Amino acid sequence: MDLWLTETHPKNFSIGFKVKETLYSEASEFQQVDIVDTEFYGRMLLLDGKVMTTEKDEFIYHEMISHIPMLAHPNPKQVLVVGGGDGGTVREVLKHPSVERVVLAEIDGLVIDSCRKYLPSIAGQLGDPRVDIQVGDGAAFIQQHTDHFDVILIDSTDPVGPGERLFNTAFYQNVYKALKDNGVMAAQSESPIAFSEEVTHLYRILSGVFPIVSPYTATIPTYPGAQWLWMFAAKTKGPLEGINTEVAAELEKTTLYYNQQVHRAVFALPNYARKLLTKEGVPC
Amino acid sequence: MDLWLTETHPKNFSIGFKVKETLYSEASEFQQVDIVDTEFYGRMLLLDGKVMTTEKDEFIYHEMISHIPMLAHPNPKQVLVVGGGDGGTVREVLKHPSVERVVLAEIDGLVIDSCRKYLPSIAGQLGDPRVDIQVGDGAAFIQQHTDHFDVILIDSTDPVGPGERLFNTAFYQNVYKALKDNGVMAAQSESPIAFSEEVTHLYRILSGVFPIVSPYTATIPTYPGAQWLWMFAAKTKGPLEGINTEVAAELEKTTLYYNQQVHRAVFALPNYARKLLTKEGVPC
Repeated sequence: MDLWLTETHPKNFSIGFKVKETLYSEASEFQQVDIVDTEFYGRMLLLDGKVMTTEKDEFIYHEMISHIPMLAHPNPKQVLVVGGGDGGTVREVLKHPSVERVVLAEIDGLVIDSCRKYLPSIAGQLGDPRVDIQVGDGAAFIQQHTDHFDVILIDSTDPVGPGERLFNTAFYQNVYKALKDNGVMAAQSESPIAFSEEVTHLYRILSGVFPIVSPYTATIPTYPGAQWLWMFAAKTKGPLEGINTEVAAELEKTTLYYNQQVHRAVFALPNYARKLLTKEGVPC
Repeated sequence: MDLWLTETHPKNFSIGFKVKETLYSEASEFQQVDIVDTEFYGRMLLLDGKVMTTEKDEFIYHEMISHIPMLAHPNPKQVLVVGGGDGGTVREVLKHPSVERVVLAEIDGLVIDSCRKYLPSIAGQLGDPRVDIQVGDGAAFIQQHTDHFDVILIDSTDPVGPGERLFNTAFYQNVYKALKDNGVMAAQSESPIAFSEEVTHLYRILSGVFPIVSPYTATIPTYPGAQWLWMFAAKTKGPLEGINTEVAAELEKTTLYYNQQVHRAVFALPNYARKLLTKEGVPC
């Protein structure tokens, strides 16, 4: 039997993977959670049929969402990850020696449980004593905190389903409030090819809340459009001011995507992506 | 009828496109040539069922293969494009004001003819008086030239089928010979995710022929693996020494991918791609 999994994008293109076997398939209160083993990309987590992470290319997304903001902070101790139930972002955050506590605020406990069981190379650090798992609404969790976190990472799904509540101004005002004065954040921000409207929307929201917003890019082969964006935002300092180069130099010995040259390069956006970043219609 | 075109990669993943209609479908002496109109990526050229270029994302590939090497040359007048029958690379080369002549050495006349008819936004500059179309074997054409070209661009298909002859040492020795002393070249060099062995192979070949070889990267959403490489090679100067910034500043006003920040950033390769670039097993 030749079994293929196909993810079809609303804009009429698709990506497919030859599947060895289905390891897990359950409906949670929030979404359909599937883990399959594929021929080329290894094991893969899907939420509502959309590829979230794969063993083969997960390092790209997880290194990019974490190390770029973490290294922009001089001494990140208290970190919050919203979403990210697969544990990959937490794993990367824990590589920073200053970290004392990482809160993982994931709405869907089934995602955490299934990834711990079937994706141990990604979720394997969730048992670290510095990790505090809070199963629940990340937006509500943030609302309860003021001047508390050094770094907040929004590791969300697309702005449909449970991820939708993380794409609005009120949410980012609460993120701003929950960050300390020298706090920084990053949010997964979709693809300028496949989700161009969402990129513009999120950039406008963030620019209305934070004085500094710097989108950055990398290639995720298993995401629609492949060119992917994250947005760095901060209260006081740009993303390349005062990078902790000592930590960066240690990190890049073991990372698979990140290195210090890449760190500077990811902020160079192609013209077609730059054009999406407008504030009240004015290109930035 | 819901019609989908699927390109399946030998490594067991695929990319698919919803098709409006098939515009052209003929077998040439060398390969199957198809042009289809798709919902999201517009019109698309396929050779032997593999996506070569699409109206929506062709600018990425064509700007990257041309402007990076062209701007590294102080005064490119004589340019050779091997392959590239769709005309997109020639179109970009012609944007450089110093260019006097561009030879397009494409083995398959059917590719040129079908693109001129069905992909005018890509092939539309092939009638420019500076363009000299040579339908025939590019490898044989290069062999007949010594100390002649300022810039040579290898705009080939994958190293199977007619493209295979462009992936060996003898070919690149002839490219070296056909270039003037300050000549530069670039070659499309596959994906470090989907074609990792080919990347290592080509890097070794080029490093055995040219003293300077610098791979660079961009994201092509419709190519397998999406993270794509080109290799810049030169006899005397690195790719960022003496960039023609005046021409670059004019160019970036109209390009869709290229800008001067991107120009410097594309040479920052992620660690997993760097690891593929070894010379006799020694990482560079």
